[in-house]
Amino acid sequence: MPEPHARRRDALRAELSEQGLDALLVVNLLNVRYLTGFTGSNAALLVRATDHAGAEDGTIFCTDGRYLTQAGRQVPDLQQVIERQSAEALATRAGKDTAAYGRTGFESQHVTVDGLDVLGSAAEGVELVRAPGLVERLRQVKDDAEVEALRMACAAADRALAGLVRHGSLRPGRTEREVARELEDQMLDHGAAKPAFETIVAAGANSSIPHHRPTDAPLRVGDFVKMDFGAVVDGYHSDMTRTVVIGQPADWQREIYDLVAAAQAAGRAALRVGAGVREVDAASREVIENAGYGEQFLHGLGHGVGLDIHEAPALSKTGDGRLAAGMAVTVEPGVYLAGKGGVRIEDTLVVREGDPELLTLTTKQLVVV
Amino acid sequence: MPEPHARRRDALRAELSEQGLDALLVVNLLNVRYLTGFTGSNAALLVRATDHAGAEDGTIFCTDGRYLTQAGRQVPDLQQVIERQSAEALATRAGKDTAAYGRTGFESQHVTVDGLDVLGSAAEGVELVRAPGLVERLRQVKDDAEVEALRMACAAADRALAGLVRHGSLRPGRTEREVARELEDQMLDHGAAKPAFETIVAAGANSSIPHHRPTDAPLRVGDFVKMDFGAVVDGYHSDMTRTVVIGQPADWQREIYDLVAAAQAAGRAALRVGAGVREVDAASREVIENAGYGEQFLHGLGHGVGLDIHEAPALSKTGDGRLAAGMAVTVEPGVYLAGKGGVRIEDTLVVREGDPELLTLTTKQLVVV
Repeated sequence: MPEPHARRRDALRAELSEQGLDALLVVNLLNVRYLTGFTGSNAALLVRATDHAGAEDGTIFCTDGRYLTQAGRQVPDLQQVIERQSAEALATRAGKDTAAYGRTGFESQHVTVDGLDVLGSAAEGVELVRAPGLVERLRQVKDDAEVEALRMACAAADRALAGLVRHGSLRPGRTEREVARELEDQMLDHGAAKPAFETIVAAGANSSIPHHRPTDAPLRVGDFVKMDFGAVVDGYHSDMTRTVVIGQPADWQREIYDLVAAAQAAGRAALRVGAGVREVDAASREVIENAGYGEQFLHGLGHGVGLDIHEAPALSKTGDGRLAAGMAVTVEPGVYLAGKGGVRIEDTLVVREGDPELLTLTTKQLVVV
Repeated sequence: MPEPHARRRDALRAELSEQGLDALLVVNLLNVRYLTGFTGSNAALLVRATDHAGAEDGTIFCTDGRYLTQAGRQVPDLQQVIERQSAEALATRAGKDTAAYGRTGFESQHVTVDGLDVLGSAAEGVELVRAPGLVERLRQVKDDAEVEALRMACAAADRALAGLVRHGSLRPGRTEREVARELEDQMLDHGAAKPAFETIVAAGANSSIPHHRPTDAPLRVGDFVKMDFGAVVDGYHSDMTRTVVIGQPADWQREIYDLVAAAQAAGRAALRVGAGVREVDAASREVIENAGYGEQFLHGLGHGVGLDIHEAPALSKTGDGRLAAGMAVTVEPGVYLAGKGGVRIEDTLVVREGDPELLTLTTKQLVVV
């Protein structure tokens, strides 16, 4: 049985044939990683449409001399070129065999205007064809190994927050920055390679800022504390937001918390195979709009998550496409009352036949600490 | 006196006039930060050539709704547009006033092939002209505020390593990963917002891999331990490498350490106003080549450092240009003996009239721990 990366390259080749392309030049590092398993910081990949797993003589991997050993270990099954200018080197290879690579696609949403000039000169005689988003489309649906990595990433975040609550770390006087750092430390203790993004801890009025960066502001009794954080395990990102109250919640706090929780539940319930991404957004958004807080929910409902923290599909008013089994997405509605406080509740889930699989398991009951 | 960001925009405008451009559409986030001080994750800036500090009515900043408050605080002096598609929104603005923005430059090394289509449709009637690297060129020479941030970032790294040595953390049995994490923790304790990049700790034979990722391999007596790490303060990055020996160094270790130290000193001595970047690379490289290890020094000598960890100028065999006072660069030769061990010694320095200013102050004597 071919290993997952060979299988993914096979899936891409089917796509290339359908588009009438001889090959695809992959320059995005996450896409290269997805297709090969290579984790270094410089690489490109030329995937030939007519190859097949077990006989990939026209598919070529390129990285630079720093990664010679690593490339041998991580990508033993592909022909390799060692060159600093990896995409250019592969374009040059394509130019030397126009019979095999005559019509080669390139990732036009990643290649820059200047970069295309370089590729065009290198690949003389090759027709370079715009082919945006082919690998990203495949990446939307996660295989078992990917879901397992996401599970571990979500577990690291769950355990980190449980550790904080257990240690009594969410208490008046501690600063946003201290809490953020402890969350990140705990995630590393629980197997994360690194945080998935800059941890957001926002206390009091700061919680009304959707993307607040932690400051030296102390937590106070009566504050909402909004924590948006995630872990990376094997390259896969988790994403979770929880909002707690320090001391007893005021009526307005309970009201918007319950509202956001209801909207989040509606969003989760709408995660069905075949559902349009705009419908999913709408299912959650209308709960908030019906309560009169539509203007205070400023962002999309969620996004795909995997090798990147934000990837396709977008669950938003302007998103495109339908959900398929195996897609991993976040559901994260929020209500933000400027100068007062805000609530966001966010899970990472996998779309399944029937109910979605919840990966972030921390309670969504209003926790009072 | 105009504040630094207004002064930087003035310098850019001089450049635009020289190039016969009416404006520049800045889409790279670090460039936007350099010109405005804005630190959010989505923004673009349209700089009009004929504006001037104090009357910037044609220079427009754009970010999205998440950053409304922050933009008001960080960029109070510029006209603002709030839109999710920030570059497109500014292109649309330019298209509505072709008299003012008729010939507008764009950052062709950052704008993607697909992105240019979007800008072109939005800015109908505007001639979009390739203008790569204009802001990057300005960013090479640091002003006093920038050098001060670099000093603090370098000090955080210096203190972190001193803390490790003081705590006896570099000892047999500790793993690469543990040492890396402690270095990062110590940098945060000493004022870093975050590590400047993934900390490299490479022990024993792993030290021969230039860009090794820390593993659970333990430090052993007789090992080289190579540590390449840096801190971010106010957005500015430090970059330093030190290599130590656990226990008494063997003769071969002392030999290559002394060689790399001599090459590094030669590289620092070559940092003179007006020196060509290739000459600087050569001055250090020839020390290693003359000793017969030229093949074991696989990378360039150094790079500019600032808002990005790698920025212009490149000190390498293929770099272009000459050094000017105020440029911040690294000097980091290395010799790597595959399967055996390697040494790299790296400082961050600022080019000055006369001797360069050394920002990373940790000793470069061979430290035996």
